[in-house]
Amino acid sequence: MNRSEVRQLCMTSLAQKMVGTGPENLQAGRGFYEYFFTNFPDLRVYFKGAEKYTAEDVRKSERFEKQGQRILLACHLLANIFENPEVFKAYVRETINRHRIYKMDPALWSAFFQVWTGYLAENGSLKSEEKEAWLELGKEFNEEAQKHLKNSNLPHV
Amino acid sequence: MNRSEVRQLCMTSLAQKMVGTGPENLQAGRGFYEYFFTNFPDLRVYFKGAEKYTAEDVRKSERFEKQGQRILLACHLLANIFENPEVFKAYVRETINRHRIYKMDPALWSAFFQVWTGYLAENGSLKSEEKEAWLELGKEFNEEAQKHLKNSNLPHV
Repeated sequence: MNRSEVRQLCMTSLAQKMVGTGPENLQAGRGFYEYFFTNFPDLRVYFKGAEKYTAEDVRKSERFEKQGQRILLACHLLANIFENPEVFKAYVRETINRHRIYKMDPALWSAFFQVWTGYLAENGSLKSEEKEAWLELGKEFNEEAQKHLKNSNLPHV
Repeated sequence: MNRSEVRQLCMTSLAQKMVGTGPENLQAGRGFYEYFFTNFPDLRVYFKGAEKYTAEDVRKSERFEKQGQRILLACHLLANIFENPEVFKAYVRETINRHRIYKMDPALWSAFFQVWTGYLAENGSLKSEEKEAWLELGKEFNEEAQKHLKNSNLPHV
């Protein structure tokens, strides 16, 4: 699969989860955290004040409405820029820098894309080649992430 | 000029100003602040602690090395995603949200693209249609920025 195909497949997989300000756009982002907190409750520890949130709490939360748009936008950006390796890697490094304060387990950068494709597959609409594309993108994300963590003298895997 | 042409022209204008970790990449970002602080010294007020920085101070500054990469990446992202209007507008809103704490004059969002194209033109290599493309992108950036500021009950123009 070449970069252009990965980009297109990832973008297609997000067509029904567009960023925006309408209720369906807000739900597309918030829904990720509903899925995430339901299926990976141990990782709620990274969300100070929401360590015990249920999917129901997420759904009512303005914080996760905003956070949902941010992560949805980040994934749209990753897909859109994937054809441009230097820009893609720079965006990975910037994402790592912004997360430094959360002292995340470095193994989570790779794990994220399993969670993300799990969310996209939730309603049964993720094609197998789309999943493959996201995992390929995620592999490259993780490689640059670990390299940058190492260069920043931070824990890495 | 259609969206695809704007995207391509903006991307081409950045080909010699790629993001990255090499010295030339770092200078491509830092150079913006050297240009900015030299030509618009009044705007240094938004950079706490650097209100009196000269271009020489910027050049020696680790803070502006990092800040330079951030703004260079942001401009690469804007160019790369321009063909996708909803993602572009979402990135504009996210940028506005992140700048809220700086209490910027809302007129600066439009002014930025004059400064940015001034920087790109500094070494004489910005083609007139590339400048036109950036200003078209900037016009759309500013429209979404002002709309989002208004919707967020913040000062707007």
